[in-house]
Amino acid sequence: MIGGGQLARMTQEAALALGVGLRVLAAGPSDSAARGGGDIWWGAHDDPDAVAAFAQGCAVVTFDHEHVPAPILAALVDSGMAVRPNPAALAHAQDKVHMRTAISAADVPGPAWGVVGSAGELSTFADAHGWPVVLKVSRGGYDGRGVWVVDSPDAAAAVMKDNPRAPGIEWLVEEYVPFTRELAAQVVRSPSGQAAAYPVVRTVQTDGICTEVVAPCPSLSDEHAMAAQQVALRVAEALDVVGMLTVELFDTPGGVLVNELAMRPHNSGHWSIEGAVTSQFENHLRAVLDLPLGSPAARAPFTVMVNVLGGRHPDMYRAYRHVMARDPGLKVHMYGKDVRPGRKIGHVTVCGADLDALLARAHHAADYLTGVIDE
Amino acid sequence: MIGGGQLARMTQEAALALGVGLRVLAAGPSDSAARGGGDIWWGAHDDPDAVAAFAQGCAVVTFDHEHVPAPILAALVDSGMAVRPNPAALAHAQDKVHMRTAISAADVPGPAWGVVGSAGELSTFADAHGWPVVLKVSRGGYDGRGVWVVDSPDAAAAVMKDNPRAPGIEWLVEEYVPFTRELAAQVVRSPSGQAAAYPVVRTVQTDGICTEVVAPCPSLSDEHAMAAQQVALRVAEALDVVGMLTVELFDTPGGVLVNELAMRPHNSGHWSIEGAVTSQFENHLRAVLDLPLGSPAARAPFTVMVNVLGGRHPDMYRAYRHVMARDPGLKVHMYGKDVRPGRKIGHVTVCGADLDALLARAHHAADYLTGVIDE
Repeated sequence: MIGGGQLARMTQEAALALGVGLRVLAAGPSDSAARGGGDIWWGAHDDPDAVAAFAQGCAVVTFDHEHVPAPILAALVDSGMAVRPNPAALAHAQDKVHMRTAISAADVPGPAWGVVGSAGELSTFADAHGWPVVLKVSRGGYDGRGVWVVDSPDAAAAVMKDNPRAPGIEWLVEEYVPFTRELAAQVVRSPSGQAAAYPVVRTVQTDGICTEVVAPCPSLSDEHAMAAQQVALRVAEALDVVGMLTVELFDTPGGVLVNELAMRPHNSGHWSIEGAVTSQFENHLRAVLDLPLGSPAARAPFTVMVNVLGGRHPDMYRAYRHVMARDPGLKVHMYGKDVRPGRKIGHVTVCGADLDALLARAHHAADYLTGVIDE
Repeated sequence: MIGGGQLARMTQEAALALGVGLRVLAAGPSDSAARGGGDIWWGAHDDPDAVAAFAQGCAVVTFDHEHVPAPILAALVDSGMAVRPNPAALAHAQDKVHMRTAISAADVPGPAWGVVGSAGELSTFADAHGWPVVLKVSRGGYDGRGVWVVDSPDAAAAVMKDNPRAPGIEWLVEEYVPFTRELAAQVVRSPSGQAAAYPVVRTVQTDGICTEVVAPCPSLSDEHAMAAQQVALRVAEALDVVGMLTVELFDTPGGVLVNELAMRPHNSGHWSIEGAVTSQFENHLRAVLDLPLGSPAARAPFTVMVNVLGGRHPDMYRAYRHVMARDPGLKVHMYGKDVRPGRKIGHVTVCGADLDALLARAHHAADYLTGVIDE
């Protein structure tokens, strides 16, 4: 697995249980998965020699992020390495214009979109589809970075001026969708085409960062949930995805619209560690290794996952003890990362039937760990 | 954690999730936890220098087996190291005569027992308590080794002749208990005295090796289950155990009798990874680190765990694929060990409501992995 963040760390847990050897290419010793230990190699994901040396002796190469440059992926494939998802599929998670083009071609519902070169072109799009619009860089954005909601030609011009495009990066403009809520549909697909769909979840993003997930999404009809799962399965097949695919969706009165894609384990699936029969991490491994997939069925009426973001206090020991003492049923996941304000450093999960109580428990614990509450 | 077997490997999974750094002293690179990776040190558990070097920089030392010699444990304590469970408690898991003496002193029910030096002394015991009797070495036995059921003075003499005692090892003789079934009561206890009791489970031993666990034990009255839990809690307190304690029990018409003790995660608790809110591995870590304990509550009406023993085929890949394809709800745990006949190399777990169906699923999978079935 290229990339040593918390997704790789949680994949280590799944690999230990499955008896699968997992080698991780981490950038440095403070990476989450490097602190977890195991077969850790040091190197940058954009260093061709480091990636090639790392991949030697692996049966399959997969990813905890989508930032490996295309030429490096192509070199891996040329050397005979099984790269999953394959570079052509992964390109859709790396480049949002590429993704929009493919989604539209597959007739999967999404917001209106276009590629623009200037604030003037953006204004033409906005005049047709309505202000505000969402302006994105085609590559390299994550956790809300590289995304702006702009409500005027001047605002668009300011964003474009302040963020000069690097070579190969385009400006993508999308219709602003007045969604009622955000959903995520996760599916897992193997090279042989076997696929399984997880329950559709409700996600809450705060400042572009996923902060809360409820699985399954409350008050979602079976018909509506199946429609969302079908969208994700169609995307997985159309784009030939192998491994986990997360389709972030806007829920609107007219149906769901595709917002973003990720081809790896994803924050919206952390609930599955306790909440599903087979976690997204285990199923990602099973898929990329072309093993039969595990059941994605939910194990509780509701599972709530809330992210823990770094706060002002680097030493979390007291808060860690407090939340464990207060709620013995809480599952605390810490990623072994240094605490920095706003950084994802862990998450908490609770399972049960009373959704309001689960939300209160999970948010209290996360707020305490973050330092928002300090009784 | 001293010892690099599958118990250490499964503790690695729990440590990754908790964000706790776990260093393991493994005997060599083919140990289960060493293959899992992480902060692995090489050395023998009975090499004072290797253990002392390993312990440097650890906050707490704990164990995946009970074979560390007492002088090495004493030296760790003398050097100021927190050793949990402490050597005085651990001595009860290391020496069965020591355990029987303490259990009797604490007025905890167990079979009649005695220390004998010859087949003649054994016969005197057997004539008083009935033939057959169970003959055990006081130290060093595990998984059925060092235990014999003998039905005559000649049989006893033969065992004693074939197994000359090493220095410090005694012959323990116990009344043969005509039990109706075997149970295990697991509790976890922290240095501050907080304790939690897991649901009492039914265990099946085959040739002295735990092969099947059902949690909770079916057809066990609440009163009976609570009595078993009380026995385990009393043992934990009387012996000042810290961490996981497993009390293996004989169930008899007159009540439960203590068979064996283990002060570490134990085979009878593997079901808790999926079957309990907090696994025995997580709670062992929480206890030895004096963190508040997690809920031991069951997550399903029944959880069935069946051990996978090595069979004749060293390559298990085909069987591994088969069981995953046949039962997507099955949880397969493989320990990364080389396959040798009769060796514990993994286990499978299923959760649900229909006990007969769960037993059939788990045994089919284990038999397939072992090679007993080869359709």
